Amino acid sequence: MTGKSEKMKARMPRGFVDRQAADIRAVDEMCAKIRAVYELYGFEPVEQPMIEYTDALGKFLPDQDRPNEGVFSFQDDDEQWLSLRYDLTAPLARYVAENFEKLPKPFRSYRQGWVFRNEKPGPGRFRQFMQFDADTVGTPGVAADAEMAMMMADVMEALGIARGDYVIRVNNRKVLDGVLEAIGLGGDENAGRRLTVLRAIDKLDKFGPEGVRLLLGAGRWDGGKEGEGDFTKGAGLDEGQSETVLFQLGIPSSIKDDSLYPAGETFAAGQGELIAIEELVRAAGYGPDRIRIDPSVVRGLEYYTGPVYEAELLAEIPNEDGQIVRFGSVGGGGRYDGLVSRFRGEPVPATGFSIGVSRLMTALKNLGKLQTADVPGPVVVLVMDRDTESLGKYQKMVGELRAAGIRAEMYLGGSGMKPQMKYADRRGAPCVVIQGGDERAKGVVQIKDLVEGARMAETITDNAEWREGRPAQVEVLESELVATVRGIIAAQAAERGGR
Amino acid sequence: MTGKSEKMKARMPRGFVDRQAADIRAVDEMCAKIRAVYELYGFEPVEQPMIEYTDALGKFLPDQDRPNEGVFSFQDDDEQWLSLRYDLTAPLARYVAENFEKLPKPFRSYRQGWVFRNEKPGPGRFRQFMQFDADTVGTPGVAADAEMAMMMADVMEALGIARGDYVIRVNNRKVLDGVLEAIGLGGDENAGRRLTVLRAIDKLDKFGPEGVRLLLGAGRWDGGKEGEGDFTKGAGLDEGQSETVLFQLGIPSSIKDDSLYPAGETFAAGQGELIAIEELVRAAGYGPDRIRIDPSVVRGLEYYTGPVYEAELLAEIPNEDGQIVRFGSVGGGGRYDGLVSRFRGEPVPATGFSIGVSRLMTALKNLGKLQTADVPGPVVVLVMDRDTESLGKYQKMVGELRAAGIRAEMYLGGSGMKPQMKYADRRGAPCVVIQGGDERAKGVVQIKDLVEGARMAETITDNAEWREGRPAQVEVLESELVATVRGIIAAQAAERGGR
Repeated sequence: MTGKSEKMKARMPRGFVDRQAADIRAVDEMCAKIRAVYELYGFEPVEQPMIEYTDALGKFLPDQDRPNEGVFSFQDDDEQWLSLRYDLTAPLARYVAENFEKLPKPFRSYRQGWVFRNEKPGPGRFRQFMQFDADTVGTPGVAADAEMAMMMADVMEALGIARGDYVIRVNNRKVLDGVLEAIGLGGDENAGRRLTVLRAIDKLDKFGPEGVRLLLGAGRWDGGKEGEGDFTKGAGLDEGQSETVLFQLGIPSSIKDDSLYPAGETFAAGQGELIAIEELVRAAGYGPDRIRIDPSVVRGLEYYTGPVYEAELLAEIPNEDGQIVRFGSVGGGGRYDGLVSRFRGEPVPATGFSIGVSRLMTALKNLGKLQTADVPGPVVVLVMDRDTESLGKYQKMVGELRAAGIRAEMYLGGSGMKPQMKYADRRGAPCVVIQGGDERAKGVVQIKDLVEGARMAETITDNAEWREGRPAQVEVLESELVATVRGIIAAQAAERGGR
Repeated sequence: MTGKSEKMKARMPRGFVDRQAADIRAVDEMCAKIRAVYELYGFEPVEQPMIEYTDALGKFLPDQDRPNEGVFSFQDDDEQWLSLRYDLTAPLARYVAENFEKLPKPFRSYRQGWVFRNEKPGPGRFRQFMQFDADTVGTPGVAADAEMAMMMADVMEALGIARGDYVIRVNNRKVLDGVLEAIGLGGDENAGRRLTVLRAIDKLDKFGPEGVRLLLGAGRWDGGKEGEGDFTKGAGLDEGQSETVLFQLGIPSSIKDDSLYPAGETFAAGQGELIAIEELVRAAGYGPDRIRIDPSVVRGLEYYTGPVYEAELLAEIPNEDGQIVRFGSVGGGGRYDGLVSRFRGEPVPATGFSIGVSRLMTALKNLGKLQTADVPGPVVVLVMDRDTESLGKYQKMVGELRAAGIRAEMYLGGSGMKPQMKYADRRGAPCVVIQGGDERAKGVVQIKDLVEGARMAETITDNAEWREGRPAQVEVLESELVATVRGIIAAQAAERGGR
């Protein structure tokens, strides 16, 4: 920077977050466990870039109310439109279509990465978030869908979530489509209304049967009463149509009528697939405590064509407001038989699922299933003298500690004892190493145990206790530096474990 | 997808790549080693999002010849400009400035992530690539720069690069600035010419002293001769100015004159800092075989204000065309004292470096320092019968194998023995498991060793050899499935190791 800029405000765009050490470590630990399951199932890592041609990604996002349709897009130098990927599935479809001949079929792959949604941010709703997907491309059979449901169940248990604290719920878009056909909402001309119905069904958990009934009919006020909050326009179904939909979601109806039971090929095919999936997972030993057929599962993305599935955490966890709630969905997916074929002009059936990484990590933290807080801070070697020879000696000490696998650093800030001790404290240093001129002359170092020091200052009230504690500061020969520090760290770890 | 789309071409924008399993695993392995060094030095992970306000990132990229200045940008709904980050340093500066009061000072952090350059792609030059950075913010002393150089050296050795096969070269922007001042190129009005001179110096490795002399003077033809290839306009220096610059790069001059030795405060300060860095690293035990002062190091980014450093691989490696060349730079960095302060209105000195992950991984692969090819494919359980009961049994077999830590899958593609065997082959399966009706009735499975099978088919010529080899196919009790498969995988691993 040659010129001087005027002072600028440091700020981040809405809907984005900086990630802190504890969260980064927790996600790494969690994703390693997920990856191990995918690998055991024989899936291979393959990753696509974050930028694709806009038309290659297609338009399959839910709630495309905004002009830019949920996607961040920009024009390339040659005027072609590029977009940041909004999920990992659409880029995978492009990849498989482009490399179809080279790939083994079925093609089983997994990928972890950031995706972007140009949406209105809200609580827990970000414009950049991480997904971790697995997909099987090139097989039409529901055995692949059944396998996905079983793998999701295995992922949950690999993460330490107890059986009974999660469930994989399975439904089929064909069943829903069959219901919609039966109530007269088939055909291209009703695509918009079908979508409104699907969105309404998707809100069953949130608003209950009464809320969904309103959304299927004229519409619903956010506040619960007419005139309160925003109004969401409904699908405009009549009572008979609404009741059929609700009955298929398992909600008892006041109408007793055959019209509640849709007929038709699509509906029957969907039901048949669900029965086959249920039989397959049961035969493989997965009971209804793990995988369950559930007609209310919808999944928001428009590209699903058959079975859809969702992993739900049943555990009750405090939410942001401290209320105890079911955590809900942490991932899901389904069959997307049209996504690769739109490039190929031949059928390329596919199925896969996506785990919402940040959301699942939050759940695991709340459940106490991630032990990453326990990374100790670095040992800080204080700088008592600033001549080159002394600095060289301090650097050699940190070098020896690091060679022994101990995190260590020489203090690099301003001079004075107080800021150095404050720094060591803020970094969570287990101890500091001190060598001034006197110590250097004697070939010794002072090592101050910060955890013990703090404990003694705070809690020790009588002399007996004082004598039993570890001494907070010891003087040892330079040659004993590593062994002494290692002992202090081990003692602190044992103490933390014992609490 | 409800409607039918017309067939679309599957293609990827220029300058982007899909990543394959071997590269993903190699990068993961390499980054784990880099991370371990950063952690040992006491740095903590902190990550920023990929999208920032355009003005917060600033304009510090080299070669901004194109209208969009090297950055992918787009407008948010509120008309504000957003950009994809072009490096990890500018977002870190925003983060530190925004969270300044909460952070320990110095603030030592590291981050790994994708960055984006809207540049003309070329061989080995991508528009999305990964960097792995470490930074110390809040300390003006060159001890922090010396530490960065030492940490880069330690990273190289942690990756298995032998001492002598790499060197960390250190220079100082102030020295260069001092030279430029001395030859009359100081002041804001000469900013453009100074940049042209820096770019010319940066080409010393590529074009040699004669090429740089041309770029410092009138300019240079890419083809080497007048009229051949593109013409790059030079900095327009006269002979005396050029010779001073070249002499400072260590290139002997025909002029014998005091004008070759620039005077001035900036030059002297820069030299003083370089001497201090050299003393510090030597005192800490890092010799000139690891860290070397080198006046030709420039680094492309405009935000550097003091010491700059570069990690260079000296090992000679075949390039894309099969020629043996020095691999060159795999990372670098420097002091950027202005980057945080432009938000704070107070001095916030900082220094850090960036490793080019893909480039370094390519080098390590060429040097044979990454052992990731050895992930065996999954055991494939063939599907001989497709009734639910049989499928359930196959699923239970893969379940047992996975529970024993063995990658395994049930074949999910079309029917027939031949495609199943072809699939297992393409996946690199160590063996396949076969159970038809007869085997099921007897409670046994057939296990076919694909590696041994291929070897026997290819190489075995007499019966003695045949008998000594492992049998390519065995029939065992279902209860012996896991133990037998484990034995086959172990035998194959031993054989691979022995070759």
